[in-house]
Amino acid sequence: MGKKTGKQTYQIANPPMIISTGTVAGPFEGLGPLAQDFDEILTDARNEQSSFEKAERSILIKACRLALDHASFSSTEVDLFLAGDLLNQTISSNFSAISLGIPFIGLYGACSTAALGLGLGTLILDGGFAGSVLTATSSHNSAAERQYRYPTEYGGQRRSYQQWTVTGAGAALLGYTGEGPRVTAVTFGKVMDLGSTDPLNMGAAMAPAAADTIVRHFQDTGWDPNSFDLIVTGDLGKVGLDLCRQELSEQGITLGDNFNDCGVMIYDLSKQDVHAGGSGCAASALVTYGPLYRRLKRKEIHRLLLIGTGALHSPTSYMQGENIPCIAHAVRIEV
Amino acid sequence: MGKKTGKQTYQIANPPMIISTGTVAGPFEGLGPLAQDFDEILTDARNEQSSFEKAERSILIKACRLALDHASFSSTEVDLFLAGDLLNQTISSNFSAISLGIPFIGLYGACSTAALGLGLGTLILDGGFAGSVLTATSSHNSAAERQYRYPTEYGGQRRSYQQWTVTGAGAALLGYTGEGPRVTAVTFGKVMDLGSTDPLNMGAAMAPAAADTIVRHFQDTGWDPNSFDLIVTGDLGKVGLDLCRQELSEQGITLGDNFNDCGVMIYDLSKQDVHAGGSGCAASALVTYGPLYRRLKRKEIHRLLLIGTGALHSPTSYMQGENIPCIAHAVRIEV
Repeated sequence: MGKKTGKQTYQIANPPMIISTGTVAGPFEGLGPLAQDFDEILTDARNEQSSFEKAERSILIKACRLALDHASFSSTEVDLFLAGDLLNQTISSNFSAISLGIPFIGLYGACSTAALGLGLGTLILDGGFAGSVLTATSSHNSAAERQYRYPTEYGGQRRSYQQWTVTGAGAALLGYTGEGPRVTAVTFGKVMDLGSTDPLNMGAAMAPAAADTIVRHFQDTGWDPNSFDLIVTGDLGKVGLDLCRQELSEQGITLGDNFNDCGVMIYDLSKQDVHAGGSGCAASALVTYGPLYRRLKRKEIHRLLLIGTGALHSPTSYMQGENIPCIAHAVRIEV
Repeated sequence: MGKKTGKQTYQIANPPMIISTGTVAGPFEGLGPLAQDFDEILTDARNEQSSFEKAERSILIKACRLALDHASFSSTEVDLFLAGDLLNQTISSNFSAISLGIPFIGLYGACSTAALGLGLGTLILDGGFAGSVLTATSSHNSAAERQYRYPTEYGGQRRSYQQWTVTGAGAALLGYTGEGPRVTAVTFGKVMDLGSTDPLNMGAAMAPAAADTIVRHFQDTGWDPNSFDLIVTGDLGKVGLDLCRQELSEQGITLGDNFNDCGVMIYDLSKQDVHAGGSGCAASALVTYGPLYRRLKRKEIHRLLLIGTGALHSPTSYMQGENIPCIAHAVRIEV
């Protein structure tokens, strides 16, 4: 079994593999630079469903089925399903769990959910409690925007620092059969409130939480930025990524060209009108389980640090004049 | 480390103790038959806060602080905080995590959250990943009702089968120091949809999920109803408890007087106008961490099976004409 090293990090003694992944991207994400590395791209953002919420759920289930199919697993062979999403009461995940029929642990971590599920699934496997764990998350632009901000039909003017909620879903099957990159360390973050109050500027809100978890991961493990081929946050966007880099620099940690953000990577910021980049649970799930997973499998990347960042933003608390709490969880993935 | 036994149950090799608990009940819960076994009872449902939502958060933090104080623990000594609640984006838990400063795993399990947190915390401890885990949950009648159904000011006529959302919070500190009852087995449930569509009749919706997890726990462990001094669901209410008993009876499992429900126990149903009983995350948390914990410590109960039941009910999906998915998680607690 693993053990805690330092204050917040778990070294995994028997690191599970990411046996397979499944990714489904929305039509707009299919126009971005990573399109070729997603399993499926929707032609219709509603995916033939009667609502955006049902569309989100349908692609979450699809991503899970793809991950299972890619490993020739049936859902009855999977011990636990860990999932969460942005919709109130995490309905995408709950309804997906009915369809999959796997014992379910519901998570809430906003956009940090992919990393949270990977990390928690890894602990459960390393602890010897399961042979396989499926973890997944999703987001849908039209479903999230109308819940968190304005209905998209309203056509509100977007700000330059705003991010674009990614439509998509990503799933990963973790276990000890076959082969694949392994999750070797996990750092669970603390919830932080740095006084950010603008629900349109999530990147700035999340940057301090990301920086805190990155610093903690390095302190706990003794690794440094040069230990990794790639360090990706998911999803700070362009504004948050710059702020995070600056914050780390002030703490004596210099990040080079190997530092990037899933929300920046998923769109062509010069051509797609997404302002500061992508956000939403699907941003880090799609990028990690799509292109990054493939690059790990091809050994183009050997050591990846994923820092899932979540703005635990709620219209309820925001409308009561409160700040936006944020969290970041890190997982180290190696081949 | 523990291992999976049967299809959904984990036998805990090195069972952690519930070292201490903390409970804070609302004024109305303080008029019920279990009042003497809660640590604190509010005189004001707002707890001197400017909103019901802030009140909920304040009592969740208070319950956590009480649990820590009772074990003479500081929050910096705790490895992980596992929490969830009913409010959108689980804001009570997120904001509590800021105050506590403990690395945080956010859960969503609706009223099953107490059992989910106990179960997951137990796995993390048994896996050797932590020395101590704090788990907590809360609900507030006025905050939940206005989010899920009607603002309480509206004064809508309540139905005979309806439950009353409990105001309160409960926390448990798990670990291996001191003494206390131990969590010895955990069964994670599947999300079920039996076609229930009435958001006012949660008990009926949750009963099949509770029965399924109880049957699974008995099948996986070889234990039966007579193995336990007490089997409590939390929270089916009177209607759901009868339905669950009937459902189990049809499956050949007869439950006697040792079968009860936290939502039924927390109020005096003959005097308090709560119709079918209590509901909300705090119902099972208050009853388990208050009176049942004390009875376990006094060895009046030796073996307790807690089945946390969650209606993963969402206004979003309900208003789109969808059913109410439900889940139940079971934890076995022994002295």
